[in-house]
Amino acid sequence: MATFGDIGVAAAFNILSALIFLIAFAFLRLQPFNDRVYFPKWYLKGLRSSPSHSGTFVNKIVNLDWRSYIRFLNWVPEALKMPEPELIDHAGLDSAAYLRIYLLGLKIFVPVTLLSWAILVPVNWTNNTLAVLSQGDEKITFSNIDKLSISNVPHGSPRFWTHVVMAYVFTFWTCYTLMKEYEIIAAMRLHFLASEKRRPDQFTVLVRNVPPDPDESVSECVEHFFLVNHPNHYLTHQVVINANKLAKLVEEKKKKENWLDYYQLKYSRNQAKRPMAKTGFLGLCGDKVDGIDYQTAEIERLTQEIEAERERVKTDLKCIMPAAFVSFKTRWGAAVCAQTQQSRNPTLWLTEWAAEPRDIFWANLAIPYVSITIRKLIAAVAFFFLTFFFMIPVSAVQSLANIESIEKRLPFLEPTVEQMINLETNIATFSCGLALKIFLIVLPTILMMMSKFEGFLSISALERRAAFRYYLFNFVNVFLVSIIAGSALSQLDSFLRQSPKEIPVTLGVAIPMKATFFITYVMVDGWAGIAGEILRLKPLIFFHLKNFFLVKTEKDRDEAMDPGSIGFNTGEPQIQLYFLLGLVYAVVTPIFLPFILVFFALAYMVFRHQIINVYNQEYESAAAFWPDVHGRIIYALIFSQIVLMGLMGTKGIYEAPLVLIVLPVLTIFFHLYCKGRYQPAFVKFPLQEAMMKDTLERAREPNLNLKGYLQHAYIHPVFKDEEDDEDEGFNTKLDDSVIVPTKRQQSRKNTPVPSKLSGGSSPSLPDHEGSLS
Amino acid sequence: MATFGDIGVAAAFNILSALIFLIAFAFLRLQPFNDRVYFPKWYLKGLRSSPSHSGTFVNKIVNLDWRSYIRFLNWVPEALKMPEPELIDHAGLDSAAYLRIYLLGLKIFVPVTLLSWAILVPVNWTNNTLAVLSQGDEKITFSNIDKLSISNVPHGSPRFWTHVVMAYVFTFWTCYTLMKEYEIIAAMRLHFLASEKRRPDQFTVLVRNVPPDPDESVSECVEHFFLVNHPNHYLTHQVVINANKLAKLVEEKKKKENWLDYYQLKYSRNQAKRPMAKTGFLGLCGDKVDGIDYQTAEIERLTQEIEAERERVKTDLKCIMPAAFVSFKTRWGAAVCAQTQQSRNPTLWLTEWAAEPRDIFWANLAIPYVSITIRKLIAAVAFFFLTFFFMIPVSAVQSLANIESIEKRLPFLEPTVEQMINLETNIATFSCGLALKIFLIVLPTILMMMSKFEGFLSISALERRAAFRYYLFNFVNVFLVSIIAGSALSQLDSFLRQSPKEIPVTLGVAIPMKATFFITYVMVDGWAGIAGEILRLKPLIFFHLKNFFLVKTEKDRDEAMDPGSIGFNTGEPQIQLYFLLGLVYAVVTPIFLPFILVFFALAYMVFRHQIINVYNQEYESAAAFWPDVHGRIIYALIFSQIVLMGLMGTKGIYEAPLVLIVLPVLTIFFHLYCKGRYQPAFVKFPLQEAMMKDTLERAREPNLNLKGYLQHAYIHPVFKDEEDDEDEGFNTKLDDSVIVPTKRQQSRKNTPVPSKLSGGSSPSLPDHEGSLS
Repeated sequence: MATFGDIGVAAAFNILSALIFLIAFAFLRLQPFNDRVYFPKWYLKGLRSSPSHSGTFVNKIVNLDWRSYIRFLNWVPEALKMPEPELIDHAGLDSAAYLRIYLLGLKIFVPVTLLSWAILVPVNWTNNTLAVLSQGDEKITFSNIDKLSISNVPHGSPRFWTHVVMAYVFTFWTCYTLMKEYEIIAAMRLHFLASEKRRPDQFTVLVRNVPPDPDESVSECVEHFFLVNHPNHYLTHQVVINANKLAKLVEEKKKKENWLDYYQLKYSRNQAKRPMAKTGFLGLCGDKVDGIDYQTAEIERLTQEIEAERERVKTDLKCIMPAAFVSFKTRWGAAVCAQTQQSRNPTLWLTEWAAEPRDIFWANLAIPYVSITIRKLIAAVAFFFLTFFFMIPVSAVQSLANIESIEKRLPFLEPTVEQMINLETNIATFSCGLALKIFLIVLPTILMMMSKFEGFLSISALERRAAFRYYLFNFVNVFLVSIIAGSALSQLDSFLRQSPKEIPVTLGVAIPMKATFFITYVMVDGWAGIAGEILRLKPLIFFHLKNFFLVKTEKDRDEAMDPGSIGFNTGEPQIQLYFLLGLVYAVVTPIFLPFILVFFALAYMVFRHQIINVYNQEYESAAAFWPDVHGRIIYALIFSQIVLMGLMGTKGIYEAPLVLIVLPVLTIFFHLYCKGRYQPAFVKFPLQEAMMKDTLERAREPNLNLKGYLQHAYIHPVFKDEEDDEDEGFNTKLDDSVIVPTKRQQSRKNTPVPSKLSGGSSPSLPDHEGSLS
Repeated sequence: MATFGDIGVAAAFNILSALIFLIAFAFLRLQPFNDRVYFPKWYLKGLRSSPSHSGTFVNKIVNLDWRSYIRFLNWVPEALKMPEPELIDHAGLDSAAYLRIYLLGLKIFVPVTLLSWAILVPVNWTNNTLAVLSQGDEKITFSNIDKLSISNVPHGSPRFWTHVVMAYVFTFWTCYTLMKEYEIIAAMRLHFLASEKRRPDQFTVLVRNVPPDPDESVSECVEHFFLVNHPNHYLTHQVVINANKLAKLVEEKKKKENWLDYYQLKYSRNQAKRPMAKTGFLGLCGDKVDGIDYQTAEIERLTQEIEAERERVKTDLKCIMPAAFVSFKTRWGAAVCAQTQQSRNPTLWLTEWAAEPRDIFWANLAIPYVSITIRKLIAAVAFFFLTFFFMIPVSAVQSLANIESIEKRLPFLEPTVEQMINLETNIATFSCGLALKIFLIVLPTILMMMSKFEGFLSISALERRAAFRYYLFNFVNVFLVSIIAGSALSQLDSFLRQSPKEIPVTLGVAIPMKATFFITYVMVDGWAGIAGEILRLKPLIFFHLKNFFLVKTEKDRDEAMDPGSIGFNTGEPQIQLYFLLGLVYAVVTPIFLPFILVFFALAYMVFRHQIINVYNQEYESAAAFWPDVHGRIIYALIFSQIVLMGLMGTKGIYEAPLVLIVLPVLTIFFHLYCKGRYQPAFVKFPLQEAMMKDTLERAREPNLNLKGYLQHAYIHPVFKDEEDDEDEGFNTKLDDSVIVPTKRQQSRKNTPVPSKLSGGSSPSLPDHEGSLS
């Protein structure tokens, strides 16, 4: 195992690279021509425009003010200065709650670190087990680091009770902090939802699986159903249209327009030569044609196709999905509808809160209920194979890339290859690593695709699901694989062969031995990696490339910015790995904890800066992810307790596992308690709150035209773009086509007077009062 | 292992005892003086009165008509004759659904039996593995029964694929039948709820954890909250009163009155001697006093105490629990309130459907939410210890009863004891068995107490929970303990030591060897036991004892009847054991299946008879238990698949477990599908249905006084008894004391006009229409 010296060298190296990143960042961010890379959030908010110093052209590109370079770390206090309410206002609750995960890490681990250094380190240090053992027959090399760990306490020593007591203390502290944090986040969420301005999703419910009706269209069916079953509350609705193909066409047109811009720019620079393009795959093969003419023709063709498709979507009944966004006159009505079952058959008329319009994942609205279970099954099986068998395709790719196989496939290369044969081993190793690396880079995309396949309806739900899977994958293929050598598959096999009593022992014994490895991991991934995040190397390069080649107008420049977002689906699982490591090593190897602390502190500052200045969150789910975060920390806590039980079982204190088994039981029930106490705040919407907001709004804006406000809130983004262009002409057309007079007179008779009469003028006046006045 | 002969003898013996029970039943039920034992249901329904033949006194007691004895099995067609809708009307949906469990058993196992005898038995029979083995060196005795089982197929034979295919067929058939049945029961439940007459629980929601308010009483607080948050729907409410002590006093008074009756009867028969009673524990010790005087004085004292307690309950604020039954004007309003969250804090204003008034478990309404989690934890831990450590107190009792320990405790008995020492072993064994037997008899009571401790609010929920626990206990301590010898505790230990791969193998290998034991078990417990059920020996004896000693009036005789009920908490787990055995042995030992079939057929007939003629269901939960029944059969199915996988792993077909592992995965997803598809019918109440019933009722009875109907529906049964006596004087008093004018004027201002104005006359008229008219 490594000595203090080794760790010191690694630490120095990583601190150095982190410092280099930070200095590079401090230098680059001060250059005006990088302003859009490092402060895109402000541009998007319209609070900052392109640097237009009164100085020279050079001043616009390079910052020559030497004083600003002295304070190269002044972004830190700037990042920490903004108070939380302002941050929520600036970047949304999701971002603020995401930052609180790092803060939670600090809250948990600062006292844990202090305690374990004050109590456990002296208890471990003042033994000489390792020294005695190394003098004995067995050759055991040990370092000072090991002297600080639990391995230094002699077999059967009563000192282990200190560790047991500390496990209790750490568990109680972690649970207490978790509960407090859950309470704060739940309160923040409710406050955020309550203090928010009027939003369409407060009034709207997504209804799926509208049953087919031979006599009525989907739109009529929805209207009748809600007029009958929510007579006092129903306001209006929008049917969901399957515009996936249309969206694809519009996307394609945009791309072609980009290419056209590019060719025109090229031509304008060099008038002598018309730019040429290839028509084949990715513009790499096929016939050579005149670029401008070709793209103009293509755009013409696509415009016509889009028009035709738009007509088809509007008229073709097959494009109208059996789903609708139903809006209510009051938040109360929407809350009631979202939380109740509508029909006898629980798979019909499924209602749920509509997500924010920009959070909706439109492509999935068309999936029927029956296929959801099957999709879930397929996704679960696929994920299982992905986790445990992912090495098989990776090594297949690797063997394909092997020189020997190239030789076999392409025999004419043989002479050349023969000369390279001595390089083979190196390249094989390299290609294996490369294939693995590529796989790990595309993994989040694969997991997002899986979530999309499963049929989640909002981007936030997709990301939460992908985060869950990414965490599991990391847990198995990073954490467990590092602790016990061997692939995940061989581990699965060995776990199936071991008894439930042995598994914690295997893990528990391996854990202290891997401390040095994980310390290095934290420094590389956690310190240098986080410092690299703030540098934004990739967006920096891409922005300047785009800026140089493509940007013509201010709007283009805005589009060239790539602010990115938090990336919950990859970011949160990474933090969770640190929680896991911290909790597992808290009792076993206290020297681990300061490294975790540095990570949490650094990451908190960096991400606070990024959230304030860079990231542009695409949606707002009001911290809906917190139950997941909480649940995973609880899971890490229980895992750490079980592993400690396994380790203690080998230390000669046979009562210790019995005393420790109480901990997971208590933790599980703590989790159940928290679930009952706080989770509803993230799933349901209390009627009291809804009624309060309704009453307030009614008092403030008695003449609000809610119907007008909600009528087109949930229109497919493809049509939304048109809205601006066509002066809302299309929308009224669409509206007309949706609400047609019913053909079935009988069902009409049972329907109360349509809401149009009462809906428009007095949208949320309760009829009870209305009847009295 | 047993041969056909052994099994035949056991079968003959059990069939004989079953026949004796049935003949005894057929004889006894025809005697008029047993009429109330075998037909109490009809008496309770008022459709039958005491036999008053015009004949002699003898005719009233003994049936002398010899012709009726010939048709001694004619109860069977009688029991099967009643069609299901009539049965539901006669005995309730719970009973009808309970019978369908047996029917489901027949539906699953008749085709399974036919298939496995047509395919598996020939496949097994036409090998000679066992014959070869028995000729070899190893001494293996085998019988014809084993020749029919999977053990007779040689190691590595491709014939095992037949068993794998049959496992698939049986799984698909079971799942298909389960799904069909779930669908039928869900439809029956919804139909039952819809076609039912008006019931208070359709309009009523139980609200718990009303937050304390310094300015308002609980009643005012509830009224204001619901007037604000459900302004158009709130009708009235009744606060929950902690009358547990009062109920206890009333109970005690009743007992004393019984004793008084007994003494007065004794005195009237023998006027010479005043009956004497002892005042101490159970009337066994203490001073001797005059029985009649003593009981009269006691009753006098209790009457006064009850009066005082009643006054206290009415006035003392501490007796008013922070809970209330809130009634709404419409079913729609109640459905909305029951399914939604009311307040920001999800632990306050908890709403749920109120159970039927007679189903409510009043004593638990007073438990606060916070303690529920702790109570659940304690109950779970207690049940764990009960299941795995129950042998410890049992053997403690046994050792206490041991002669040696008696000797130590009471040394003066030594000489006598010395003579009995040779009897010791026998008595020790006997006392151990006795302690165990007593424990098993009181187990359902213990489990019910646990459920009560956990704080469930309705008797049906209590029974469901107790049934779940009883099933687990049976599974561990009857099924697993029988398969692998050794106590549950030693098994738990060995399972913890075995690997997840070994456990199914251990079970799988042991299963075929225990077939004979379980066949005998089915015959004793399932055949003779069920036949014994119809005889009702205990109620028969008790009824005649009571009839002889206590009964004076017709009312007394009605009370002396003990119709009993289905006893879901013990009956259902017993059936589930048969499902488990049937599914486990279906592929392994097909000869097992006919025995199961006989059980299901016999039990179906017997219980149908009992439900029609005897049992008096205390509550109606509209088959709310079905999801539990379904879930447990699914669990048995998965268990049987895993065990088969383990068995196949030892048979030399190494691909078979891989092929079989697909089955549990599919079964789990089938379960998830069913859960999503049908479970909501048992948990929620669709708004469409509610609205439909509301509209119908409004059309039929426009002038219904719903408030009057609901006002006292949820009154504590202790007060209910008084209602009849005191001419409803008390109720109006209680009502006055509950709805007092508010003291807090400010909160009153936010409250809309109280419902009294609009509530009484037009209870469910929607205000939307009201405002138009």
